[in-house]
Amino acid sequence: MIKVEKAKKPGYTIIIGCGRLGANLANALSDENDNILIMDTSKDSFKRLSSGFGGLQVVADGTDFDALEDAMISKASAVIAVTNNDNTNIMIAQIAKYKYNVERVIARLYDPEREYVYKEFGIDTICPALLSAQEIDKLLDINEQLK
Amino acid sequence: MIKVEKAKKPGYTIIIGCGRLGANLANALSDENDNILIMDTSKDSFKRLSSGFGGLQVVADGTDFDALEDAMISKASAVIAVTNNDNTNIMIAQIAKYKYNVERVIARLYDPEREYVYKEFGIDTICPALLSAQEIDKLLDINEQLK
Repeated sequence: MIKVEKAKKPGYTIIIGCGRLGANLANALSDENDNILIMDTSKDSFKRLSSGFGGLQVVADGTDFDALEDAMISKASAVIAVTNNDNTNIMIAQIAKYKYNVERVIARLYDPEREYVYKEFGIDTICPALLSAQEIDKLLDINEQLK
Repeated sequence: MIKVEKAKKPGYTIIIGCGRLGANLANALSDENDNILIMDTSKDSFKRLSSGFGGLQVVADGTDFDALEDAMISKASAVIAVTNNDNTNIMIAQIAKYKYNVERVIARLYDPEREYVYKEFGIDTICPALLSAQEIDKLLDINEQLK
């Protein structure tokens, strides 16, 4: 397997939703020198960003086409929908994928039942409850093996 | 390093909180034939358990000593606190660890700022926002390397 050096991304990442996950992700990607635009309907939510966050902050609704076009969504290499509402995230992901042909689209879904549906549509989903359950299972297994 | 076969656990696991994470975890551990007791203040929350769930369901408050003793907490090999309230989870984790000497204690914390504090107290914490951010970062990296 050929190991490719991680090159600087030419495009940029749009994150919709600046809750704990959105803010954490924006801070982490900003630290890696990615170009980031983060959008949220509440200005207060941007308080979660670190002082070193170097991206753009936009107060707007991520399901609004005008707002997405102002954010130059068609130039984005990735769109990540992590609002607190599964339906909103799915709607944004579908708009990004099919209307603006964004290459990489990731949506957070709280409801694990729906995770599998969207894989087929080329939308990556992450489910915090499943990830957390896997992590706890791993912690329990480690303990078991140490005995 | 010696690889130990995963043996059947003699003890059992108490899960406090039957939200998405608690229910997912209970279903997964029950599928692995672990002995499980799951506790929640709301009877309705148990609807999230799968029909094949083979553990005990108890309607009680996980911060109540009597309820924990009825659940034979001192016999538990692991206590996992995954209610929707960080303070409740931390309180349960500390009770389990220091009052009942439970070997393995895991608490979910929504607030990632607090995660590092409790590691020092022998309480494992998991933070869904951090796990999800790591997973998204991984997904973006995979995409980058495929180009």
